[in-house]
Amino acid sequence: MDFKAELTSAKEEVESIVTSYLPKEEGLQKTVASAMAYSVNAGGKRLRPVLMMSIYKMFGGNSSNKSIAAFMAAQEFIHTYSLIHDDLPAMDNDDFRRGIKTNHKVYGEAMAILAGDGLLNYAYETALKAVSYNEINGDTLLKALDVLATKAGIYGMVGGQVVDVETEGKDNDYDTLDFIYRLKTSALLESSMMIGAILAGASDEEVKKIELIANKVGIAFQIQDDILDIEGDEAVFGKPVGSDAKNGKVTMASKMGLDKAHAEVKKLTDEAVIILESLGYEHEFVKELLLSLINRKK
Amino acid sequence: MDFKAELTSAKEEVESIVTSYLPKEEGLQKTVASAMAYSVNAGGKRLRPVLMMSIYKMFGGNSSNKSIAAFMAAQEFIHTYSLIHDDLPAMDNDDFRRGIKTNHKVYGEAMAILAGDGLLNYAYETALKAVSYNEINGDTLLKALDVLATKAGIYGMVGGQVVDVETEGKDNDYDTLDFIYRLKTSALLESSMMIGAILAGASDEEVKKIELIANKVGIAFQIQDDILDIEGDEAVFGKPVGSDAKNGKVTMASKMGLDKAHAEVKKLTDEAVIILESLGYEHEFVKELLLSLINRKK
Repeated sequence: MDFKAELTSAKEEVESIVTSYLPKEEGLQKTVASAMAYSVNAGGKRLRPVLMMSIYKMFGGNSSNKSIAAFMAAQEFIHTYSLIHDDLPAMDNDDFRRGIKTNHKVYGEAMAILAGDGLLNYAYETALKAVSYNEINGDTLLKALDVLATKAGIYGMVGGQVVDVETEGKDNDYDTLDFIYRLKTSALLESSMMIGAILAGASDEEVKKIELIANKVGIAFQIQDDILDIEGDEAVFGKPVGSDAKNGKVTMASKMGLDKAHAEVKKLTDEAVIILESLGYEHEFVKELLLSLINRKK
Repeated sequence: MDFKAELTSAKEEVESIVTSYLPKEEGLQKTVASAMAYSVNAGGKRLRPVLMMSIYKMFGGNSSNKSIAAFMAAQEFIHTYSLIHDDLPAMDNDDFRRGIKTNHKVYGEAMAILAGDGLLNYAYETALKAVSYNEINGDTLLKALDVLATKAGIYGMVGGQVVDVETEGKDNDYDTLDFIYRLKTSALLESSMMIGAILAGASDEEVKKIELIANKVGIAFQIQDDILDIEGDEAVFGKPVGSDAKNGKVTMASKMGLDKAHAEVKKLTDEAVIILESLGYEHEFVKELLLSLINRKK
């Protein structure tokens, strides 16, 4: 297997899927559609839909089905809306993301709020397009929708964001940091991978294992981010290092120290891989993908 | 039929249903749950869930089913999130709503943004609870979810809000005003009434008629609001009159004049009632309810 070539091809496929589901930039509500497209088109790793597709394929999901594509786009829309709102002046007040101006810097604050709202809502509209494809039974689609919603809300991503905002600048204990990492980072990785499994017809027990894998990978991913912020090579990392320390942000890595942080990333990764192998599917691409997330330098 | 007594009892039932679906104010994400509850508990007419329930009953929906309750709460959560975000400094910048401080005045702007996001997402989490009740088949629930989502997004409420924000202070033509009224006001009345019909088992043709009724009632409701802003009795209306003129806001009523506006409300109402009667169900309560919305003085 040529992992790099496969990953590049997967990313290209995801890119074309996600953008194909954007609303048409026409009619009186053209501006909000453009604002939504602006942030979705800003790129990024497309990590969540790539994960969803790879797990779907691992479980033998029918590759000619369009339903998985609708959910992949929906998941990326949820991720993107959260970035638009995170960047707002009342939140992180960021002027740039991924090298271009943030949504509110281009479209104004009111439109950025509405573009985020529109994109979150459009995620559900998009996932529900799968109904009209008539490929997957209604109960399975409802199960996937339930995971999509639960992991994005106050018991998932929004909940993590809330606690992150509330405890800003505080010396959080491990339980609080773990809560933030699980909800803010792992939750959407969990839903991405779980939905891939559900739509491919995996059993409830298998979906549970996938959730656990994603949970561990998400936390490891975030700790790796902390590590890179401390010891990363700015030119490779692609963003300024040392920003956590400068902002007085306590992270898992800064709290436990680099040696322990590296060990924790390795421990979580090993555990995730063992569960993945126990599932008994052809998993080489997924394994390489998870390892690439965790062992990354950027 | 004692309409007033029935309406009071319907409102009480709705009140207890909506609040029963609020998330528990506990755990690390307690603050966002409290912020969400604060705005939901601020009251209001509960018009959307009351309409949903009344149409559900008109079509003979099983009154011991809980599924309709989940959708009623979901619909009210969507309405409430839109108010929280509308009140933000970057939008209408309102300090008070329904006589109490707006969400961001109590919880701060960042938390109000997140409470709105949380509430919109929680609407879908709440509607999806109907799956676990096992009362209504999956395909019907998916149809109801699709209506809930479509009418709330950029082709519904958010779309209306976007155009309203963009054309602020402009001398909008009738087409633009009609667009705003249909999307900003009618859309959620349409979904409320359509979902009531869908979950009660109404046919596609019946649901289409209900959509048309709600569309007309929504526009009439909004023109009546314009009228009351011009000629209403401030003590009865419950909010300052003349605010549209003061803010340079062009409305249907100010554009067509009071006589034509009154006539338009009557025309839309008559049309809505004729369609309602053509459906052939026992509709006295629904009819009284629609008339009360349109003939109101407050």
